[in-house]
Amino acid sequence: MWHDTYLKAVLQPDYTYASEHLLPHLFDSLTAHALMLDSVGVAHAAEAARLLQAMRREPFPPYDPLVEDVFFTVDRGLASLNPPAAGALRTALSRNDLDMTIYRLAARLRLMRALFRVLNLRRTLLAFADREIDTIIVAYTHHQPAQPTTLAHYLTAVENNLARDTQRMFEALARVNLSPMGAVALGGTSFPIDRFRTAELLGFERPIENTYDAVSASDWQVEVASVITVTSTTLSRVLHDLLFWASRGLLALEDGLVQGSSVMPQKRNPVALEHARTKFSKAIGMTQSVILSSHNVPFGDINDPGPDMQPPLSSMWQEFREGVELMTASLQNPVINREKWLHEARRGESPITELADAITRKTGCGFRVAHGRVKTLLNQLHDEERTIDTLTLGDLQGIGVDISSAELQSALNPAEFIARRTTLGGPAPSVMRGEIDDAQQRLQADFARHEGLTGRFMASRAQLEGTGGERPPGG
Amino acid sequence: MWHDTYLKAVLQPDYTYASEHLLPHLFDSLTAHALMLDSVGVAHAAEAARLLQAMRREPFPPYDPLVEDVFFTVDRGLASLNPPAAGALRTALSRNDLDMTIYRLAARLRLMRALFRVLNLRRTLLAFADREIDTIIVAYTHHQPAQPTTLAHYLTAVENNLARDTQRMFEALARVNLSPMGAVALGGTSFPIDRFRTAELLGFERPIENTYDAVSASDWQVEVASVITVTSTTLSRVLHDLLFWASRGLLALEDGLVQGSSVMPQKRNPVALEHARTKFSKAIGMTQSVILSSHNVPFGDINDPGPDMQPPLSSMWQEFREGVELMTASLQNPVINREKWLHEARRGESPITELADAITRKTGCGFRVAHGRVKTLLNQLHDEERTIDTLTLGDLQGIGVDISSAELQSALNPAEFIARRTTLGGPAPSVMRGEIDDAQQRLQADFARHEGLTGRFMASRAQLEGTGGERPPGG
Amino acid sequence: MWHDTYLKAVLQPDYTYASEHLLPHLFDSLTAHALMLDSVGVAHAAEAARLLQAMRREPFPPYDPLVEDVFFTVDRGLASLNPPAAGALRTALSRNDLDMTIYRLAARLRLMRALFRVLNLRRTLLAFADREIDTIIVAYTHHQPAQPTTLAHYLTAVENNLARDTQRMFEALARVNLSPMGAVALGGTSFPIDRFRTAELLGFERPIENTYDAVSASDWQVEVASVITVTSTTLSRVLHDLLFWASRGLLALEDGLVQGSSVMPQKRNPVALEHARTKFSKAIGMTQSVILSSHNVPFGDINDPGPDMQPPLSSMWQEFREGVELMTASLQNPVINREKWLHEARRGESPITELADAITRKTGCGFRVAHGRVKTLLNQLHDEERTIDTLTLGDLQGIGVDISSAELQSALNPAEFIARRTTLGGPAPSVMRGEIDDAQQRLQADFARHEGLTGRFMASRAQLEGTGGERPPGG
Amino acid sequence: MWHDTYLKAVLQPDYTYASEHLLPHLFDSLTAHALMLDSVGVAHAAEAARLLQAMRREPFPPYDPLVEDVFFTVDRGLASLNPPAAGALRTALSRNDLDMTIYRLAARLRLMRALFRVLNLRRTLLAFADREIDTIIVAYTHHQPAQPTTLAHYLTAVENNLARDTQRMFEALARVNLSPMGAVALGGTSFPIDRFRTAELLGFERPIENTYDAVSASDWQVEVASVITVTSTTLSRVLHDLLFWASRGLLALEDGLVQGSSVMPQKRNPVALEHARTKFSKAIGMTQSVILSSHNVPFGDINDPGPDMQPPLSSMWQEFREGVELMTASLQNPVINREKWLHEARRGESPITELADAITRKTGCGFRVAHGRVKTLLNQLHDEERTIDTLTLGDLQGIGVDISSAELQSALNPAEFIARRTTLGGPAPSVMRGEIDDAQQRLQADFARHEGLTGRFMASRAQLEGTGGERPPGG
Repeated sequence: MWHDTYLKAVLQPDYTYASEHLLPHLFDSLTAHALMLDSVGVAHAAEAARLLQAMRREPFPPYDPLVEDVFFTVDRGLASLNPPAAGALRTALSRNDLDMTIYRLAARLRLMRALFRVLNLRRTLLAFADREIDTIIVAYTHHQPAQPTTLAHYLTAVENNLARDTQRMFEALARVNLSPMGAVALGGTSFPIDRFRTAELLGFERPIENTYDAVSASDWQVEVASVITVTSTTLSRVLHDLLFWASRGLLALEDGLVQGSSVMPQKRNPVALEHARTKFSKAIGMTQSVILSSHNVPFGDINDPGPDMQPPLSSMWQEFREGVELMTASLQNPVINREKWLHEARRGESPITELADAITRKTGCGFRVAHGRVKTLLNQLHDEERTIDTLTLGDLQGIGVDISSAELQSALNPAEFIARRTTLGGPAPSVMRGEIDDAQQRLQADFARHEGLTGRFMASRAQLEGTGGERPPGG
Repeated sequence: MWHDTYLKAVLQPDYTYASEHLLPHLFDSLTAHALMLDSVGVAHAAEAARLLQAMRREPFPPYDPLVEDVFFTVDRGLASLNPPAAGALRTALSRNDLDMTIYRLAARLRLMRALFRVLNLRRTLLAFADREIDTIIVAYTHHQPAQPTTLAHYLTAVENNLARDTQRMFEALARVNLSPMGAVALGGTSFPIDRFRTAELLGFERPIENTYDAVSASDWQVEVASVITVTSTTLSRVLHDLLFWASRGLLALEDGLVQGSSVMPQKRNPVALEHARTKFSKAIGMTQSVILSSHNVPFGDINDPGPDMQPPLSSMWQEFREGVELMTASLQNPVINREKWLHEARRGESPITELADAITRKTGCGFRVAHGRVKTLLNQLHDEERTIDTLTLGDLQGIGVDISSAELQSALNPAEFIARRTTLGGPAPSVMRGEIDDAQQRLQADFARHEGLTGRFMASRAQLEGTGGERPPGG
Repeated sequence: MWHDTYLKAVLQPDYTYASEHLLPHLFDSLTAHALMLDSVGVAHAAEAARLLQAMRREPFPPYDPLVEDVFFTVDRGLASLNPPAAGALRTALSRNDLDMTIYRLAARLRLMRALFRVLNLRRTLLAFADREIDTIIVAYTHHQPAQPTTLAHYLTAVENNLARDTQRMFEALARVNLSPMGAVALGGTSFPIDRFRTAELLGFERPIENTYDAVSASDWQVEVASVITVTSTTLSRVLHDLLFWASRGLLALEDGLVQGSSVMPQKRNPVALEHARTKFSKAIGMTQSVILSSHNVPFGDINDPGPDMQPPLSSMWQEFREGVELMTASLQNPVINREKWLHEARRGESPITELADAITRKTGCGFRVAHGRVKTLLNQLHDEERTIDTLTLGDLQGIGVDISSAELQSALNPAEFIARRTTLGGPAPSVMRGEIDDAQQRLQADFARHEGLTGRFMASRAQLEGTGGERPPGG
Repeated sequence: MWHDTYLKAVLQPDYTYASEHLLPHLFDSLTAHALMLDSVGVAHAAEAARLLQAMRREPFPPYDPLVEDVFFTVDRGLASLNPPAAGALRTALSRNDLDMTIYRLAARLRLMRALFRVLNLRRTLLAFADREIDTIIVAYTHHQPAQPTTLAHYLTAVENNLARDTQRMFEALARVNLSPMGAVALGGTSFPIDRFRTAELLGFERPIENTYDAVSASDWQVEVASVITVTSTTLSRVLHDLLFWASRGLLALEDGLVQGSSVMPQKRNPVALEHARTKFSKAIGMTQSVILSSHNVPFGDINDPGPDMQPPLSSMWQEFREGVELMTASLQNPVINREKWLHEARRGESPITELADAITRKTGCGFRVAHGRVKTLLNQLHDEERTIDTLTLGDLQGIGVDISSAELQSALNPAEFIARRTTLGGPAPSVMRGEIDDAQQRLQADFARHEGLTGRFMASRAQLEGTGGERPPGG
């Protein structure tokens, strides 16, 4: 019946994918539809719901070329058990609204899982920051040593960024979690269905208002892809820094996360971080499939952003999730070479900004002039091939600056540099402590929000299954 | 001094771009910084603020290879007028936090303008829908005629989609509208500055908490790019349909939006829609530059997502804005060939679903059986090369269905098909009326929200300029 | 030993992927290396080669967390059979050069298969064109009817495009088919190996000259991705037209390639074409992963464009191949509605260019003036709501043109329009016949070239296996 | 006449872009067309050619809303001078084939310029390599020190890669340099034109065979974008390494290519390299616009890959060219810290592979065993916190290896490590010398090929201008 090429390139892989990833959502959607039909008085719908609950507990049939897809497999199964129930179930139902519902339920679950991974990474980052609140590092700008700061300062910056990503994910979730059910082919139906009831049973926020929109829109899919892109780009940047530190022996991963070489006996490669980088590159790459499948195609029910996009989306979620997991694993117990970092901060010129600040305060000459004077001084040192720890009061007097020895030493000390930076959001440990506490509270609130939603979705699943619940989305 | 290649490929174009697009934001930021410094007691800062207000009214100097960029042009100008004021201004200030502030202010303005265009398109769509609430069209799914619906149903679906895009834009705005000022190079400062004050003066929601984050993050930039991608993909899909309709003579643009051919005298090409399509393709393409500039680069102050990304972002905003404007113009007064559309709905088989629905209701056989019977009937008609308007009661009896002539006619009448689809969000005019009213109210609320923000940003500008205001962002 | 996350996210899936897709290439590479070592006098290398030939005939071991990857699985197996042979094999060998060799061999095979599919599509297009050399269609430009031409003209244009894609693929193949073997970690070795010998054994064109380049370069991978992008964009455009024709009932697919609807009994959706479209969108999307994995990463041996990129590349090849196969299947026996197309050509205004041409020739007024006159005439017809088949000699005299009735009829006849377009590459059947013949000859030459390469690669495989051959790459 | 939005968003910017970038190509194409018409006997065509030659020397008119575009500006100008000549020129000409011709001529010129930049970078790399043939560096794999090699080895690897990119560019050029002229709207013409003659006059290789293909194909455009992507990804990887070296003080740029900080007096940022990185990111980003404009649009004459794509393509060429120029400038006179690099090679463990090689040769134990023994030895050293320069003969005896002191010292000496790697393409200076010579010869051949094409295109221009020539494409 089917062209062999079509069977192999489309129908069979679709069935396989749906069997592995979508069946719980398919049964949920059909059961909710049946219960709603029953509530508006459609005969035999209650039996359909009960039979669906029974069927989902049985092994799902393997692919049979005589049946088009998983929907018709259920339809045929139901019809063989109870024709009127099967007939009732098809009332005011199309694969159009059904499929979109299933894809949204799947996206909801995957997004909840991704969120949970991001929350865990935030927790790991804050715990790490908490341990490294006094660890001095040299921050680089434009690929050059810039200023001393603390590892906690850097890590908290990353966590703050991920807190915004968490917001984005919750906001995207609100637009994913809408019900297409009842849109039928595209125009609704002439049967008096109750779209609110179906939406509620499935844990959706509400029905999508316009039925044409319900079966056509791909915005929610491009949005989840975009959210993954936003977070993935940020994390790829963080990985750049982590690998830069690993290259210079400042950070090393634990044994279970490094690999050696078949030819170079000394190698201990921080491969977990390297693979995480590619996983984010791949996640971003996958989002391009999602964008392209919604580009210059009709706004209406089509396969492009529908069944055809589910496997790439699944790959995207997986790459993203594993990238975050690899980073989380890597940052739980890394070895930090604090001495080496401190050594760099002390020997390098990164604290020199504070000398200009000190001159400004001391002489009232204005930062502009102070900056110029310190630059002159550095040029002179470079000409004499001296490092800044050889600076003398005489050198300073040479540029017209009169400060005490204690002031000079203090200005060049990276720890004091940091301690003085008590600006809101600065690295001074006194400030960081409060910042970490605030971040912890935000994180707890986000965990609670996630847990609340998980509970709601599990309760919905349990009701539709007619028995237990599902494992937590974050599990 | 500068390498000629560097001058021509970087410094000069940067200066030109900044002169054309960023000066108001530069002056705003510096003035706010000066006012804040004055408020915390830095001497000469008040004079700096006053001088900046005067300087911004003068023509900005043309490029001079001896001065690095626009910041140092202002710095030098200020120093020539009042060295202590110039010195004061440099206190607790770096191009790092300053540039990020300027780019956020620019993005805020461009986003407000884009929002305004989207709001206008929504208004145009709803007005169009309002006129076409009874206009019957044939909706296609999978590139084949599917069901009759109304033009209003389609247009409202698009507007609903754009209402979600509006949400996304407002949410992105909340993350753009945060102040990096006071982060200085990355670690804040040892001067007792007031970051909340600067943020408030600039109309920002609040300072970005972590100073490392403030100068490093590119998430907000990738997010605005993503929001543009989401909307652009949706509108490219709508353009597919509009051009499909134009190809078939169902929709024609007004004269000022069509172009002819140099060789084919009959041509009236709907080029405004075609160019809109490419503008969205280009806007999406531009977002890839934004993503790539934040991919696998350090998380810290670098040029990639900074100055280097502003011209592509500017192009992205422009392509998007013009794409929306071309669509809005095209949908204000298009000519709709209602007769041709009605003809297609009547002659084609798109209303046939309702026959199955009617059989279901009438016979109680269940939709599954009814669907099968209608399919058999259609196969028979096709074999006999008949169209569905030739269906007789006898044909129906042949498939075991006994309905009246009135019921048959009603089932095949596209207008009745539509009138019966009173499901929430369905095309029945009675339902659509309420849906359009609801959409209008949402739109008014969004316009009001936009206007409120515009007023706030204009007031901030006026205060910093020391005089008037800016033109409305949507203008 | 391994961190659980690393095991699950990296090692295990890598082993699975390699086991399913890369083993023949692994054994080929190792055997070639062993034979080369033997040829330069390394003791026990000959035994290693023989043992590898035996091992590849046995089932490959399932994943064992104690062994890092497939390479070490072979290494361990060999060592358990013959330690000196295992020791010899490791001489001047690294996973760095080995992996790159394997990936190039895999890409070579996939590219040969993709080429074969493209050649088949070209054959199908030419056969189709050959049947439709007189079939009149209306070509659209800017989404409006433009001029009559033939279906053969269109199809041959597409084939010509694919002939250029074939060139690109052969050219890319020449750069893929180079040998990294002997580069070892990156710097070659202090053993006197023979890189030309290994290259020859593996069917490579020659060794990659620089050993650092050999293990680092990703250009060949981005190039194959690009070649896929070029062809995929073109074919997505062709699909746009095919679906446009299907929407208008001009083209229909055979039964095995269409799907119906669960709710709309009349639907016969040309889904094979729709799925082909998404497959190309996905293929292009996959290429973005390839680009991103080679963006802003070190130029040296890393995982990003190495093992991590093989699964996305595999998906890319598969989507592309299936997209081409679906198009080929769809174009083998489509139903063409020739009458409907001819009707459109006759009733519409698309032949009107020829009237301007005729006036130019007849009156010598220049095409510029003739074009203007015909435009005036058309405006007049539109005002009078007349179609062009109502044009009279009087109408023409009205615009100062004096032609005979026969000339007028001829100018408006689409078949004569076409017959006159005998320009090189034009649609006149007399011209098209020769063009199709030339295209056939080019295609035969490309098939022959493909067959020649297939034979060479099979012979190389047979020699390394020590026995039979592989199935043809195009199989 | 025109809708204000259309005027501002489309017509006016198109005119501006064409005026700045496309006029020479427009005049060339029209003149060639006129000369061809004259050669086939069209009256007044010779006059048209002469007038076009005169017009191109005059200033081109500014935008006038009453004239659609630059083509009609020329058409009107010509008609005002000589109506019959203007009429003749329009014979067998459409903006469809004309525009495609202009875009191909523009792409040809831009590609030639890009090629010239790549050739210059190759020359710079080889000259640099020639100077650093003995400069020892530590090559990193997986972000960890791997083996000593030379700077020349690395640089030559990059040059070799760019030699392949040069091939790609020449191959793409062959497909760009084809003539659409004579395709007219899409179906050729009923006038007896000579497409070979026009092609020859314009310096094209030959006419595009199929006229539908000629006005429709976008493959050549996606191909040039792809070629830019391939080279840009490779160069972005090289920049990663250069910036890594700059971060660690191993490489510094000359003064004219670094920028300082407004707040950190010590900063000397290698910004030329950083901006080059973004320029490649942007170039790749721009290619996405090109891909998207050819995705899911009709295969026929449309605006998407036509006029609408020229500005993004122009930006792509510019970003790419400037990126290559910045790299070339950066690599002409960088300061290399040879001592620091040698120090790293000596103190680190990167030469340890050679110890395993030496043990293999000395003991005949096979590399597999030797690798294992050296690994044991290193673990022991790490436990004792010793560096490898403290290795003693006793340590080696402890792992059962008996080698002489001289052999041990030699095995650990990076210079000897390198000198021994005389494998084809290895870093041994004796090998590198020949490799650089070969590369120089390839480069000279490529320069010669480029010069030959330049001469041909200049001669064509001179003939069409009726006078002088153009500046060399590489100028």
